[in-house]
Amino acid sequence: MSVSPSAALAAPSFEGEHRFDEAFSLEAGGVLESPILRYALYGEPNAAGDNVIFVAHALSGSARVADWWPRLFSEGGLFHGRGYCILGINMLGSCYGSTGPGSIDPATGRPYGPKFPLVSIGDMVTLQARLIEKLSMRRLRLVMGASIGGMQALEMAIRFPELVERVISIGAAPLQAMGLGLNHLQRRMIQLDPAWKGGKYAPGEQPREGLALARALAVCSYKSAELFEQRFARKPDRSGEDPWASLHEAAQGLSGRRFDVAGYLDYQGERFVERFDANAYLAITRSMDTFDPARGYASAEAAFRRIQAEIMLVSISSDWLFPPADIAAMAESMTSAGVRCQLRELVSSHGHDAFLAEPDELARLIGPFMR
Amino acid sequence: MSVSPSAALAAPSFEGEHRFDEAFSLEAGGVLESPILRYALYGEPNAAGDNVIFVAHALSGSARVADWWPRLFSEGGLFHGRGYCILGINMLGSCYGSTGPGSIDPATGRPYGPKFPLVSIGDMVTLQARLIEKLSMRRLRLVMGASIGGMQALEMAIRFPELVERVISIGAAPLQAMGLGLNHLQRRMIQLDPAWKGGKYAPGEQPREGLALARALAVCSYKSAELFEQRFARKPDRSGEDPWASLHEAAQGLSGRRFDVAGYLDYQGERFVERFDANAYLAITRSMDTFDPARGYASAEAAFRRIQAEIMLVSISSDWLFPPADIAAMAESMTSAGVRCQLRELVSSHGHDAFLAEPDELARLIGPFMR
Repeated sequence: MSVSPSAALAAPSFEGEHRFDEAFSLEAGGVLESPILRYALYGEPNAAGDNVIFVAHALSGSARVADWWPRLFSEGGLFHGRGYCILGINMLGSCYGSTGPGSIDPATGRPYGPKFPLVSIGDMVTLQARLIEKLSMRRLRLVMGASIGGMQALEMAIRFPELVERVISIGAAPLQAMGLGLNHLQRRMIQLDPAWKGGKYAPGEQPREGLALARALAVCSYKSAELFEQRFARKPDRSGEDPWASLHEAAQGLSGRRFDVAGYLDYQGERFVERFDANAYLAITRSMDTFDPARGYASAEAAFRRIQAEIMLVSISSDWLFPPADIAAMAESMTSAGVRCQLRELVSSHGHDAFLAEPDELARLIGPFMR
Repeated sequence: MSVSPSAALAAPSFEGEHRFDEAFSLEAGGVLESPILRYALYGEPNAAGDNVIFVAHALSGSARVADWWPRLFSEGGLFHGRGYCILGINMLGSCYGSTGPGSIDPATGRPYGPKFPLVSIGDMVTLQARLIEKLSMRRLRLVMGASIGGMQALEMAIRFPELVERVISIGAAPLQAMGLGLNHLQRRMIQLDPAWKGGKYAPGEQPREGLALARALAVCSYKSAELFEQRFARKPDRSGEDPWASLHEAAQGLSGRRFDVAGYLDYQGERFVERFDANAYLAITRSMDTFDPARGYASAEAAFRRIQAEIMLVSISSDWLFPPADIAAMAESMTSAGVRCQLRELVSSHGHDAFLAEPDELARLIGPFMR
């Protein structure tokens, strides 16, 4: 008898949204009127409000952390059933329930679309901290995230030093030039698709091809050349396509003549458009671009000096979007700033995606940090 | 008084085209009727026809090798004024004079466009060898190229072992999965542009945005993250744009809010569309994908056993499109096959492009090979 892979997924003990009555002013300018944050809880906060673990999700994740990080937060996972209250909050700009480009702009009565303002990582965590306060959570035992989730975890420790006891940030650092360039090209792909319509596409009519292509390029940056080589090498597409087929023998376009890696990338793109929104992708990648702890301070070190939390930074050996050297440099800067900071390396050929692809190895690295 | 950078460019002693009377059958199927090869000569072949250096160009190059490799082939260069006859041949599929997608298909009287057949690297060198014979060149002192030019050089040594005395192949190996994936995505970008029109765009109305975007991604793969970081880091666009500008304050689209690397990539794309054709880009990247010396043999080693030439393979330390390890593996396989093969590494942060960006260092490496 086969067991569905989702059989062991923990269900949230609560899932809902909070609507803030007040307007929320953004760092780069602009205001979100009565923003909404969607959140999920697994377990209950204790009376002291100090058993909470806040998990910040990555680009395409959601508040339901046990769905996308099951080996950590579902049954049998590192953090499951240990008296913690796990909190997931969907980030601003996303399409999983919190205010984002698909939300109605109260000023116009129509979706924000391309007029959704730039939300910094600092904006994200500031509103998250307000929600945490409203939920009567006084201290976070741990804030944890990978990729843009790791950016949020670090930013929260800088902005709200007294709120955060520990941080685990995985595969996160300010994007370097290559990453900024790749994000830019992904946004241009979406905007090249005529279905984007300047961002004013109707619900259900989003720029599928442009978004799929952007995702496919992102997947290249999330994986490693080594992994692709192990999996695909120069093999033809597994469904029987022939990369040697002459152009004029095939239909126009590319299908029918792909290498296996091309079929894989196309498939990843096609799957993604079923569950993600193009304008949200534009918004979140810009948020990601602007993460820079040094901004507003004399230096990154000056920002890190605010941190009271104990920090674990995890780099991924084959991550070329967030190279281990960048994360090591950040660890050094934190240590210079007097932060109790540990650096660990997740050795994996899976590239940036190893935080999802290698949960057991990740659990092994971070487990001791919680004892 | 400023001197034009092109002042020292050697002019070809002859430049023209050869039209083959016969039809040329392609490996993957299909025929080119009366194909044309555009070529350029610098210097004259000697009476014995054995002073010729054939230089095969890379994706966007041309027969005028002294224009794009001036430090090797123009005044003062390694190969300039030493009694060699330098031959450049524009590759099939290109848009610089040889038969390509923009040429008239005799069968229809219209440009081939999307019906241009797949040309393998073997096809390219087979027709080149016929031209070389017609030019009464009996033996090539050297065949040299980088990237897809290096593929041609190796393929020529395998297919026409008696023709080739020496080969210098730089930054070339069969593309691995990551490279195949990136080429695929580049083709999809061109095809996503509505101006592509299924490949049937009118001359002068090509899919500029899609081609520019494809080139921009290619540039990411031709350079290294290290170089981008040195040049651009997280600096805003040098013309004064502000990556922190909120979305709704800027015009739709991305300009006005770019990081410097994004402005650079856009600029590289815009320049490229002025000098290159989208359908040629589709055709040549597919040719590049299919390079695989092992094809048609029991193994790559079996193919290499045919080689009589002395080979120098040059890898580039920061090349992630053609990783040094792949080129080292090819050198090992050649040595096992009894080929006199030397491996050199061009140490540079310039990535794949180092063959153009570091000509002096390249000359230093390859100079001894010609003595």
